[in-house]
Amino acid sequence: MATVAIIGMGLIGGSLGLALSGRGDWSVVGYSQRRESAELALGRGAINRVETDLGAAVWGADMVILATPIMAMKGVMKQMAPHLRPGAVVTDTASTKARVLEWAGECLPASVSFVGGHPMAGKETWGIEAAEAALFQGAVYCLVPAAGTGSEAVERVVGLVEQVGARTLFLKAGEHDRLVAGISHLPLLVSAALVSATTGSPSWPQMAELAATGYRDVTRLASGRSDMSRDICLSNREAVLAWLGKFIEELHGFEHLLKEADVDGALKEAFSRVREARERWLRERDKEGRG
Amino acid sequence: MATVAIIGMGLIGGSLGLALSGRGDWSVVGYSQRRESAELALGRGAINRVETDLGAAVWGADMVILATPIMAMKGVMKQMAPHLRPGAVVTDTASTKARVLEWAGECLPASVSFVGGHPMAGKETWGIEAAEAALFQGAVYCLVPAAGTGSEAVERVVGLVEQVGARTLFLKAGEHDRLVAGISHLPLLVSAALVSATTGSPSWPQMAELAATGYRDVTRLASGRSDMSRDICLSNREAVLAWLGKFIEELHGFEHLLKEADVDGALKEAFSRVREARERWLRERDKEGRG
Repeated sequence: MATVAIIGMGLIGGSLGLALSGRGDWSVVGYSQRRESAELALGRGAINRVETDLGAAVWGADMVILATPIMAMKGVMKQMAPHLRPGAVVTDTASTKARVLEWAGECLPASVSFVGGHPMAGKETWGIEAAEAALFQGAVYCLVPAAGTGSEAVERVVGLVEQVGARTLFLKAGEHDRLVAGISHLPLLVSAALVSATTGSPSWPQMAELAATGYRDVTRLASGRSDMSRDICLSNREAVLAWLGKFIEELHGFEHLLKEADVDGALKEAFSRVREARERWLRERDKEGRG
Repeated sequence: MATVAIIGMGLIGGSLGLALSGRGDWSVVGYSQRRESAELALGRGAINRVETDLGAAVWGADMVILATPIMAMKGVMKQMAPHLRPGAVVTDTASTKARVLEWAGECLPASVSFVGGHPMAGKETWGIEAAEAALFQGAVYCLVPAAGTGSEAVERVVGLVEQVGARTLFLKAGEHDRLVAGISHLPLLVSAALVSATTGSPSWPQMAELAATGYRDVTRLASGRSDMSRDICLSNREAVLAWLGKFIEELHGFEHLLKEADVDGALKEAFSRVREARERWLRERDKEGRG
């Protein structure tokens, strides 16, 4: 039986624990800075053992999964480095990959392998309380092996991805970060900016009465953890700024169409095009059985 | 037993029919330009009688509900005007109110009353197939009586709103249109612009693989009917443009915050503020038992 150490007992760390601990082929060790989270994870069966010392948690582990906030990862890597077993495979779950791979190169010993990871699953609630074994079922799980990582180490992380029910997608770090900036970080900013623009209006008390399910869904991402949203933006700043610029241009395009009388049908055409593109995406998604 | 004529057998007209026809105090007449929709509505029990002629449909009706696309309403009003029973109450369900009230003033005879209506409920699917009796349960239903409308006529529409399970909110037309521009039409445009910016990218095929539930929810409104989206924008152009301008400013604000290193915590603070504002709104909503 192999040992996996999960560092960070939040939504992602806890859900990975729940998905792995029931399988019988992993002994799962959990570490959290907040002792209650680790105890709760143990109580929920997400882990088999709590360790309150980071060195002890990774000691002897065949695999280590970093599931802490992204900006904490460099410190954790430094601190755990001397305690890692030679041959261990380290992976992470952060939303951006370029900086995490840089830190792994700087902080981890040459005797271990690093394969960056990013499960494309989540919800706006967080913490071990929100964890669920099925969170990754059908989801895409991005993998970004560090330069020079052996195929055996990569295969071990692929195995783990399959065990939690997800589908591997290999990407380069920069490519990953540019893609998620558009598909995940831009929507987060748009959602937050929409809440900010509306709730900041003097008319908000009346608007609040009228806001319905459409408003609720478009703004859902704005309810995520503020420190996580900040970390995502700052660790992927250039790509996010580039997408934000493109999006503002797009809004100016709609502004222009709105100023016309739509005699040529361009506004209707723009809405049709968008609708079809989204429906096509939904169909592909259904076909692949994604969550 | 009073007679209500519903003009237009789409999602809203059909759902009103389903909510009213089962009560036993209304005889519901349905008219649709597309005969199959009216037949389907009859089959589903949303109406008690189909009329294929607009004049015959409103003939003798105590109440007439216009549930057609907004840009069709003026024509319908003109066409049905000579057939309306004196004392009848006419209402509508369009997403914008100022122009509808103008048209009612121009086209309807002085012997009938007009009370504009807008149920704050809907979904991105449409047509009589998507109709459901519970669509308005707990929803806010805006009412905008035309100048000089008697209280008895207003009370009759209030009664109807209560019968479908919704909650009346009285507003002036201009006020209504400015509020919904922020809470409903801006989110629609934002959703569409996000789909346009992402699916128009050369990287979309890879991005499509990574897009998950966050992207799905923020873009949900972009799957609505393109002609309806166009009509909403055009019939409420100034208010929508004003909100679009405010929203672009808000995005520039986030752009500015992103360019800083967040040493003063302003970016985190912005995300926190937004999160709290949204959570407060959700709590109020829950308290009121809104859908």
